[in-house]
Amino acid sequence: MSASFTLAEIAERCGAELRGDADCRISGVETLEHAGADQISFFNNAKYRKFLRETRAAAVILRPSDAADCPGNMLLTDNPYLVWARVTHCFSPSPNHQAGIHASATVDADARIDASAVVAAGAVIGAGAVIEANAYVGPNCVIGREAVLGQGSRLLASVVLMDRVRLGKNCLIHPGAVIGSDGFGLANDQGRWEKVAQLGSVVIGDNVEVGANTTIDRGAIHDTRIHDGVKLDNQIQVAHNVEIGENTAIAACTGISGSTRIGSGCTLAGGVGVVGHIELADGVHVSGASVVSRSLREPGVYTGGVLAMPHKMWQKNIARIKQLDSMARRLKTLEKTLARLQGEQDDGRD
Amino acid sequence: MSASFTLAEIAERCGAELRGDADCRISGVETLEHAGADQISFFNNAKYRKFLRETRAAAVILRPSDAADCPGNMLLTDNPYLVWARVTHCFSPSPNHQAGIHASATVDADARIDASAVVAAGAVIGAGAVIEANAYVGPNCVIGREAVLGQGSRLLASVVLMDRVRLGKNCLIHPGAVIGSDGFGLANDQGRWEKVAQLGSVVIGDNVEVGANTTIDRGAIHDTRIHDGVKLDNQIQVAHNVEIGENTAIAACTGISGSTRIGSGCTLAGGVGVVGHIELADGVHVSGASVVSRSLREPGVYTGGVLAMPHKMWQKNIARIKQLDSMARRLKTLEKTLARLQGEQDDGRD
Amino acid sequence: MSASFTLAEIAERCGAELRGDADCRISGVETLEHAGADQISFFNNAKYRKFLRETRAAAVILRPSDAADCPGNMLLTDNPYLVWARVTHCFSPSPNHQAGIHASATVDADARIDASAVVAAGAVIGAGAVIEANAYVGPNCVIGREAVLGQGSRLLASVVLMDRVRLGKNCLIHPGAVIGSDGFGLANDQGRWEKVAQLGSVVIGDNVEVGANTTIDRGAIHDTRIHDGVKLDNQIQVAHNVEIGENTAIAACTGISGSTRIGSGCTLAGGVGVVGHIELADGVHVSGASVVSRSLREPGVYTGGVLAMPHKMWQKNIARIKQLDSMARRLKTLEKTLARLQGEQDDGRD
Repeated sequence: MSASFTLAEIAERCGAELRGDADCRISGVETLEHAGADQISFFNNAKYRKFLRETRAAAVILRPSDAADCPGNMLLTDNPYLVWARVTHCFSPSPNHQAGIHASATVDADARIDASAVVAAGAVIGAGAVIEANAYVGPNCVIGREAVLGQGSRLLASVVLMDRVRLGKNCLIHPGAVIGSDGFGLANDQGRWEKVAQLGSVVIGDNVEVGANTTIDRGAIHDTRIHDGVKLDNQIQVAHNVEIGENTAIAACTGISGSTRIGSGCTLAGGVGVVGHIELADGVHVSGASVVSRSLREPGVYTGGVLAMPHKMWQKNIARIKQLDSMARRLKTLEKTLARLQGEQDDGRD
Repeated sequence: MSASFTLAEIAERCGAELRGDADCRISGVETLEHAGADQISFFNNAKYRKFLRETRAAAVILRPSDAADCPGNMLLTDNPYLVWARVTHCFSPSPNHQAGIHASATVDADARIDASAVVAAGAVIGAGAVIEANAYVGPNCVIGREAVLGQGSRLLASVVLMDRVRLGKNCLIHPGAVIGSDGFGLANDQGRWEKVAQLGSVVIGDNVEVGANTTIDRGAIHDTRIHDGVKLDNQIQVAHNVEIGENTAIAACTGISGSTRIGSGCTLAGGVGVVGHIELADGVHVSGASVVSRSLREPGVYTGGVLAMPHKMWQKNIARIKQLDSMARRLKTLEKTLARLQGEQDDGRD
Repeated sequence: MSASFTLAEIAERCGAELRGDADCRISGVETLEHAGADQISFFNNAKYRKFLRETRAAAVILRPSDAADCPGNMLLTDNPYLVWARVTHCFSPSPNHQAGIHASATVDADARIDASAVVAAGAVIGAGAVIEANAYVGPNCVIGREAVLGQGSRLLASVVLMDRVRLGKNCLIHPGAVIGSDGFGLANDQGRWEKVAQLGSVVIGDNVEVGANTTIDRGAIHDTRIHDGVKLDNQIQVAHNVEIGENTAIAACTGISGSTRIGSGCTLAGGVGVVGHIELADGVHVSGASVVSRSLREPGVYTGGVLAMPHKMWQKNIARIKQLDSMARRLKTLEKTLARLQGEQDDGRD
């Protein structure tokens, strides 16, 4: 992280309007509270206004409407977090891998590895696989037969791509992810299970990110499909024949059952479960740990579950859930009885 | 997938009754809707009857009672999905691995590897391990000391079997699975945790399938046991000393806590949680994302949880959960009061 | 497991008071029910008193107050499970790895590996990494640039430590764990996501255990921090900038969202979900499968969720959840009406 830039360079590279000292040197990023005189920070949340006013940051990325509260140099933008995202990459240590195949990698003679690609130590690449230009196959990754790793895509370490899986350009796959494992297809023969061969594959678009230890199963007949710009966090499970639309982001520990289609521009928070064979419309947002059991055809926010509370409160109240139907019926009866009684009393009074 | 068979060959191999052109050549599988003139399909769900009537498939696997709706050749059976399962394997690309130990694998001198077994690139096999006939140890798998991989069992890629784990015959273990990691055994010493050594192992029967990134912990004293024919999907956690009965199938992201015994012929859907030290009878079926907190001694279907709904509806209603006990009490009071009131009114009227 | 000790040796090594035959030879551990004449067992749960009375164990670890029920030799202690934990290690097979770097490992010339450390087959270690004395890097592990593995810490197999991750002393990391993967940081640009570089790292203290396939993300700006003595089970997800306090133990399949701080001495049971940017006080205990959505500032036990019940019971009652708010309002109305009615009736009677 020894890189250093002038504020003018950063403004130009990241798409913001500079206000202040163009030659000010920036050598890192920090929070408003902790930034020093050579670090840049950002302001995107009103609750940190106190820190903005007191910051010693070399410069702050913020909205023009917040400029009055900033004591120093500024990068003005309508989307401070987006500019911040771009700035972080200026200070991200460059991996600096050398093109070529490491001596300890095992590459099938029938695989095609672009000369600009990197195949790191211990990687194993099967027959017919294609590794395109500037792609990176990290240490101990395994790539199956006829799999395709598109231009500039990176498998960081110990990633497994099974046979015939295809990834587009500029994808980033974190360690331990498994793409193209068999879908869970079983036929029952008088109590005993027989496996249904999973003949489809997984097709992943461009600019897709897949988190650590996430699993994406291959399709039964057709392919499982992850479209351009999808972002998947860690430990997500995507079952066979799922389709995830463009630019949908899914947080960790979410599981999506077979043949479900998720629209584009959706967000699923962490720990969500989605049953199989349903559809979520574009722009559906599911809250953390919710279970989606039916198609959601309208965009909007959906939530389920009963959140944690002090154990005694939970115990006392949750026990009543099993009486809910009875309570509803008794409430109805009471309403009727009371109405009748009220009627009689009114009659009596007349 | 260049294989091709006559319909008669498929009928015989997969156990169905042929009706139509025995010499019809089949070169692949497809859905009823998309099948072409050289592809076989199946009909198992009444909601696709329209597609059955219009299919251009070379042949369809279906029940005799549905034959009237099929325009072409048929394979008749009482269990179409089972025959379909068998047919898919006719068209599954054969892995075609060459027996022997890859030059880049590391095999301890004291391991016994059958001459018909395959040990792929980058695999590491410890002292005393036994790899039986026709077993397959995929790329970058790790097998601990004295572990046993039974006849015809396959570890696809980056699978870890820890020391002394034993797998039976014809098991299939998907990438990233870890079998035999330590159970979570801790003793508390005035706030600080001390580890309990996990001295048991994991014993897995025949024909067991374990999904990608699933973890199965070794037992504390005795072994964790997975019986014949069990099928585990991806990202399942099986804690120490769990026992899973024959032919039980468990879907992805389910977690089973320590010392719990699950019967045979059970199904647990995705995302289920099961607490420790309980028993589930044979034939228990647990719905997706349910949490099982006590023994289930009767077969049947069990469900829990509150499913996702529009966020505002959830917010309004779930807030009331903390009032449930009070509501139940107030309801009871109302009933008593009303009964008394009604009595008095009746008295007054008399 | 051919080790054998006198009962006196065990008593001294494990910190318990011997009562009985000091020379009695112990060659293994077993449950009270199954122990034979050369095995030691423990009694810590009143429900097994029957087995204590009938045990044939060579010796039993138990509280002085239970001594009257023990037919044989005893190790007396106020914390039988803790002494048991120590005894198990006497009979744990020693790994017996030879110091040095395996020929098939790939170690960057700029990494520093202590002469007493073990680097097993297929491991890959990056530039600037430091492997301290007696540390163990298991088969097919990957260690990034400038990562530090402290004295006596062990990565069992296929563990990935990404660049600059630092582990303290005597940590134990189970297979498939990924430490230092990128946090899930995304900025939205008109529907499209841009990645926020994750410039922090992960810092792990001493005596930390991390389960199989658990993932711990690196921080965005600052580090993710796991303090001394924390124990993490399998398949846990720890998001970026989480902090977990000393001696907190977390069971399998739990997910903790970004920037959340968990106190010391907490326990989170299996399958718990914790939202981001909140704090859990020291001594908070969360029950299995609960979802924590707000800061818990008081120690105590917290629980959420609706547990599994027979499906029909669930169906009937859970459908009413969507009427809860309406039920609460109607109950209130009934109470008012009834009170009024009662008043009128009383008035009428006067």
